[in-house]
Formats: sequence, C-alpha cells, structure tokens
Amino acid sequence: MAQDFDKQIVKYLQDAYAMEEQSITMLTKATKIAGDPDLMQLYRGHLNDTRDHQRYVRQRLEDLGETENRLKGYVQQLTAMGLGFATHAMPDTPGKLAAVAYAFEHLEIASYTLLRDVAAKAGDELTVEMADRILPIERQAAQLIEENFELAAQRSLAAVGVDIQPDQGIEGVGIRQSES
Amino acid sequence: MAQDFDKQIVKYLQDAYAMEEQSITMLTKATKIAGDPDLMQLYRGHLNDTRDHQRYVRQRLEDLGETENRLKGYVQQLTAMGLGFATHAMPDTPGKLAAVAYAFEHLEIASYTLLRDVAAKAGDELTVEMADRILPIERQAAQLIEENFELAAQRSLAAVGVDIQPDQGIEGVGIRQSES
Repeated sequence: MAQDFDKQIVKYLQDAYAMEEQSITMLTKATKIAGDPDLMQLYRGHLNDTRDHQRYVRQRLEDLGETENRLKGYVQQLTAMGLGFATHAMPDTPGKLAAVAYAFEHLEIASYTLLRDVAAKAGDELTVEMADRILPIERQAAQLIEENFELAAQRSLAAVGVDIQPDQGIEGVGIRQSES
Repeated sequence: MAQDFDKQIVKYLQDAYAMEEQSITMLTKATKIAGDPDLMQLYRGHLNDTRDHQRYVRQRLEDLGETENRLKGYVQQLTAMGLGFATHAMPDTPGKLAAVAYAFEHLEIASYTLLRDVAAKAGDELTVEMADRILPIERQAAQLIEENFELAAQRSLAAVGVDIQPDQGIEGVGIRQSES
C-alpha cells in the first residue's frame, strides 16, 4: 500500500514538474507580448515564482529517487501528448494572453490541490508542505491576472487602434459609452 | 470608432463560440471517463449549460451579421492553430480530467469577462447582458469542480488499485473518510 501510494505521488509530482516547465515557457513568451509594462511586470514576477516552484518539485522528486534524466524524458512525453497547450497555442493579444495565463494558473491550482490530497492520504507530510507553500502563490497570481483583465482588454483594443477615452463609462455595470 | 468596436466584439464572440465548441467536445468525453456517478452528473449538467451558452453566443453573432458557415470556418481555424487543447489532450484519469475541466472553466470566465469589458466600452448592452447571464453559470461550474477535487483524486487512486482506508490521513488537512 505505502509503495503504491509513493508511486502515485511520484506520478503527480512528475506531472507538476512538466506543468511548471510549460508555465515557464508560457510566461517567458508572455513577458514579450504582455502589451503593457504592468502586465509584463506581473508575468515576470510570476516567472520567478514558477522557477522556484519547479525547483521545489524537483527536490521532492529527487528525495523520492527520481533522476534528472527521467524528468526530462517525462516533460518530452507530456509535450508530445499535446498537453503542452500553453506552448504551441500562444495567444496573440494581451487579452487572450491574460485569459490563457489565468486558465493555466487554475490548472496549477487544481493539480497541486489534487497532489496535496493524495499526499495527505499517503501521510507524505513533506509533499503536503510543499503544496501548501506553492498554492497561495498560484492563487495570488490568478487573482492578480483577474484584477488586470480590464487593462489587458484595453491594451488589446489599443493594439488594433481602438482607443478608450478616460471619461467613458455607465455607472453600476462598468459600461463605457462610446462617443461615436 | 463604433464600427471598429463592433468588429472587435464580433472577434471576441467568434472566440467564445469556438471555445464553447471545445467545451462541448471536452465535456462529452468527460461524461465517459468521469470515474464516478456524481462527477458524471456534474459534467453532464454543465454540458447542457454549455450548449445553451453556445446558442446565446451564436444568436448574438447572427444579430451582428455573422453567418453559420463563417462560424464553422472559424472553429476549424482555431482548432488547427492548436487552441483546441481540451480536445486533443484529453486527460486519462478522473483527477486530471477535473484539473483540465477546472482550467477550461477559468478560460471561459476570463474570456467572457474580457468580452464583457469590450462590449461595455462599446455600449453594446445586449452582449453585456449575455455575458452577465453566462458568467455566474461558469463560476458555479468551476466551484462545483473544485468541491469535487478530493472525490476525483480518490477515484483516480481507486482506478489504479490504491484504496483509501478510513483511518489513513493527517489531521487537519481535510481528509475524507472512505467507507470502504
């Protein structure tokens, strides 16, 4: 039983490792097409967090006997399966980028929550602690992206020549009136 | 200005239409590999909502002069670009399925929020109302999936022969007691 559990935890950790790899690829590209200095700063900050998270996951995998080479193979395998959605389907506007980054954060939140559940059931406290260290940062990143949706939409519009006037807006529902 | 805005809203609506198409494909497959009657019910219920949402979006596109044929072309184009991550990267366990479905719900939440922002700025109240009708349902679906993460993790473990014993677990970390 304990061995079965360990095997499952290793699988979840391998998935998490590959997911962080995809996140690094996505966020690296994101910093280049963010469309706004604040958005760029947001993605860059989370890129640093993501590198830390991948290091935590690798450490945990090494503790459980996984080698660097096996990890690389696993990332390649996952990407080949098409799970690398963030890397080969890179959005082309600040708005779509924010939407995909937001979705990806929630893939991470879900994955670490599931990993935490399995680790908790297996009594693997170190993995539970790792998930508890990572989860609040992922939630915070998702929250930050959500708070910047309007800015991202505005930058997407500006990029195609549709400018927003500062005095536009309908009270109550945040509607901006067009002056045309 | 008004015309530029309309063009952008049509683009966002086309994206939303294609996204709902992907969601329908994903949820249809999800009902088959849910791994649990409650999870299956959850995906099936949201599949019905998703069909409604796609119909709302199509109606709005038709109001704005888009034809059925152009919509189909758009879905194909988007899928070819690799944005159909949910369809060609179908997860193989109840846990991964829940994680991907959760991420996809947040892609939808982000997309409708951005569409709503743009429509609000353009003074397109009908599109704002549509987004306001859809968004709470997407949030509710995401919430329901989140509440079932533990069940999904348990079903994933059971599928590989790891049964949860009632006395296993670490206190204070939200362990569910299995009746087996």
